[in-house]
Amino acid sequence: MLITTLASHSSLQILHGAKKEGFETGIIANYSRENFYRRFAFIDNFYSYSNEDEAVLGINSFRNSVFVPHGSLIEYLGMDRVSKITVPIFGNRKLFPWEANQHKKMSLLERSKIKVPEKFEDEEDVDRPVIVKLPGAKGGKGYFLARTKEEVKRGINDLLKSGMIKDKSDLIIQEYIVGIPMYFQFFYSPILSRVEITGIDIRYETNVDGLRRLPPDMRIDPTFVVAGNIPAVARESILPSVFDYAERFVNTTRELVFPGMIGPFCLESIVTDKLDVVVFEFSGRIVAGTNLYTYGSPYSWLYWDEPMSVGRRIAREINLAMERNKLAEVTT
Amino acid sequence: MLITTLASHSSLQILHGAKKEGFETGIIANYSRENFYRRFAFIDNFYSYSNEDEAVLGINSFRNSVFVPHGSLIEYLGMDRVSKITVPIFGNRKLFPWEANQHKKMSLLERSKIKVPEKFEDEEDVDRPVIVKLPGAKGGKGYFLARTKEEVKRGINDLLKSGMIKDKSDLIIQEYIVGIPMYFQFFYSPILSRVEITGIDIRYETNVDGLRRLPPDMRIDPTFVVAGNIPAVARESILPSVFDYAERFVNTTRELVFPGMIGPFCLESIVTDKLDVVVFEFSGRIVAGTNLYTYGSPYSWLYWDEPMSVGRRIAREINLAMERNKLAEVTT
Amino acid sequence: MLITTLASHSSLQILHGAKKEGFETGIIANYSRENFYRRFAFIDNFYSYSNEDEAVLGINSFRNSVFVPHGSLIEYLGMDRVSKITVPIFGNRKLFPWEANQHKKMSLLERSKIKVPEKFEDEEDVDRPVIVKLPGAKGGKGYFLARTKEEVKRGINDLLKSGMIKDKSDLIIQEYIVGIPMYFQFFYSPILSRVEITGIDIRYETNVDGLRRLPPDMRIDPTFVVAGNIPAVARESILPSVFDYAERFVNTTRELVFPGMIGPFCLESIVTDKLDVVVFEFSGRIVAGTNLYTYGSPYSWLYWDEPMSVGRRIAREINLAMERNKLAEVTT
Repeated sequence: MLITTLASHSSLQILHGAKKEGFETGIIANYSRENFYRRFAFIDNFYSYSNEDEAVLGINSFRNSVFVPHGSLIEYLGMDRVSKITVPIFGNRKLFPWEANQHKKMSLLERSKIKVPEKFEDEEDVDRPVIVKLPGAKGGKGYFLARTKEEVKRGINDLLKSGMIKDKSDLIIQEYIVGIPMYFQFFYSPILSRVEITGIDIRYETNVDGLRRLPPDMRIDPTFVVAGNIPAVARESILPSVFDYAERFVNTTRELVFPGMIGPFCLESIVTDKLDVVVFEFSGRIVAGTNLYTYGSPYSWLYWDEPMSVGRRIAREINLAMERNKLAEVTT
Repeated sequence: MLITTLASHSSLQILHGAKKEGFETGIIANYSRENFYRRFAFIDNFYSYSNEDEAVLGINSFRNSVFVPHGSLIEYLGMDRVSKITVPIFGNRKLFPWEANQHKKMSLLERSKIKVPEKFEDEEDVDRPVIVKLPGAKGGKGYFLARTKEEVKRGINDLLKSGMIKDKSDLIIQEYIVGIPMYFQFFYSPILSRVEITGIDIRYETNVDGLRRLPPDMRIDPTFVVAGNIPAVARESILPSVFDYAERFVNTTRELVFPGMIGPFCLESIVTDKLDVVVFEFSGRIVAGTNLYTYGSPYSWLYWDEPMSVGRRIAREINLAMERNKLAEVTT
Repeated sequence: MLITTLASHSSLQILHGAKKEGFETGIIANYSRENFYRRFAFIDNFYSYSNEDEAVLGINSFRNSVFVPHGSLIEYLGMDRVSKITVPIFGNRKLFPWEANQHKKMSLLERSKIKVPEKFEDEEDVDRPVIVKLPGAKGGKGYFLARTKEEVKRGINDLLKSGMIKDKSDLIIQEYIVGIPMYFQFFYSPILSRVEITGIDIRYETNVDGLRRLPPDMRIDPTFVVAGNIPAVARESILPSVFDYAERFVNTTRELVFPGMIGPFCLESIVTDKLDVVVFEFSGRIVAGTNLYTYGSPYSWLYWDEPMSVGRRIAREINLAMERNKLAEVTT
């Protein structure tokens, strides 16, 4: 049995973990990156591609394999190509379209009674700081923050005048949550019927996390491109409530997108100074922040007496499933 | 023999470490949190409480146990109830009232010849940036920073006018140390007669650590609520002096509060750009920043050839004491 | 066989790793620090010195030893004394003078086709934000940032008027790269003929990393003194290009400074929001940021099935070399 994945994102961790669990491994890599991945002894098989259609052929070329999707899969290949993957995928592939639609995505959180930022349908209702978003805008272009309804109106007028939008109904007006980002990483095991917390990370973003180095009068507009991750732990008193979030979220996905969440997911959150956890986004697959924990996280050691990265945890779940003749319960 | 603790703060780490050292474990948890703690296999016994008086009954209900106090114990139960704990406590319970009194607390540092921020009895003496504190104010309410004696006077006048204080003699005027926070975690072993450095952390505070994400013209007042911790190491050249601090501090506590410090403590410090370490606070028990190091810290591996969290280190000390028939030397 | 090093910087890690690999260890320590280092059981031999000339005598006094240089060696002893070390040094001592000369240093990066900040010979050519540096200035004194050629000219005039420089030809005008710092740590093994990535860190600098705690109107000039390090991982998609950098750099050093880079080095970089990695500096020896990874880093576990600090990796390389009778290939 092989475990395979697409090169990049968390592929080193996934295949390193698979090898630790006794699997043969395979990577589907762009030609330009093959040289890099050849440096790691735990990668047994290579399929190099020069375009995305070939990548799908590569994924499907591995017989007797399970393909592990990660957070860059759809960004790299697109939803259409991903739907052409014919080998078993670890996790629930029916969740992919839910993740791609911002409205359906947030509804899974809301249905789980997870705190999310409030939406304002009408700018007249704005009674707190908000972020105004243009749907589909790449990398936050045109986004603006506003403290009052007056600032919202002024900002919308500027966007209309500049031609960036045609109609204000295109806009999403969302409560701006003031606090600190924390990304809570979880794993749902259908085999053990339990949610595990696998780690916490903070994104390290360029250029915003470097701007403190500049003198205050040399203003440069902040950008928010994730270039890495920093490890963290949360106050223990926060954990019970995020754990409740995670369990309710698993239940909601099981009801609405059967068989529901399988394996790793992440609740991307802001923690306010009242220690409320507000989730503004989720990831239904392994996130890059787990790359911090190749040898286990401060939390994984509470469950496992051996080093357990999320990559290895996926392979362990496949092993547990195969032992019980239940591979179909963790793949789709 | 059982090791028990109060749910929250660092209880997962404490009991996980106790189990690793071969102890049976027990937790005293608020009913609302019991469900969360049931998820961890290393917790053997539960006592659930609905109010703080019951919590004390719970602690005392475990026969043949050692109770491990952590940084949230007194905040949760109050000094009076803590004094009603009849089972042995790991560490020196006589230190609790010293920790609760800001004046006595700082005197332990000063007597140890540890650099602390200067105090100004009279605002006329202010010759550098200061922070003006209202004693007993929750979460820093009313605190202000000032660069000059004129700013101090103006700030005090504002407080008097607003009625927040009645008399300026209530205020503490303390040197404001400009630098970076570093929390140096130590463990004093009466059995091995040595101080170990067990780790370093930085607090991750909401909302202040998120404000860099805002545009500079959208000012929001910073708050400083600890929501988590980030790992760090210090320049090796700083360590000898903080080690001297730690050893002198242990000696001072032995002289003034016999038998002195036992087990984990933390010197909460600012490191200036002259690489001076100025300690503005200490914790006499395990701090939450140690939760980063469930599997050992960059420093613990210098002492131990096995993963050694501070929770496990406590249990190890109890084991070492029992082997030598000296349990009374590490409990009170 | 002994492994020795100079106390401070990363000496604990180096000797801890050496002991793990079965070596006897020795430290050359200033008298004032001996007491601190005596606390660690893995240090077998001490040579205490009261001045730098004695330190060299100490290093040379250990028979049958390999001396491991670290990032503070030349700062502590000076180039002249270091040239008087007669015992074998791990790594290539011919690189020391290249590292000491800013021009030769940057040329090694440029020859490796590594992106570096652009230099401007004439202020008239300035077309982007720049940093203007005074060569030899301690700790960045007199450095200034400028966004336009006009600001550069004004700043230079101020320096001339103040007498800090006599001639503007003394100045270095360098592109200011906006982004986030990331320090990529590598190890080149001549024995295994491969480059390994051993970790990534971010510097924790006083006072700049503490200034966010101040109200915005209380301006204090930032300083950039490294007091510690924070761990990080990078987006996996960044790694192939920094790996190419590292391999080309090893090749360049082999051509220009035979036998080239041996053992640990670090590419000190800024990652821009286009995810370009711009290297503004390198270290040719073990950097202090590796102290984070006493028990291995998220990357070291991809190569080694056992905890592998860079200190231990050095000792492992010496072991591998001795097994093959090739000690002369890793020492000079």
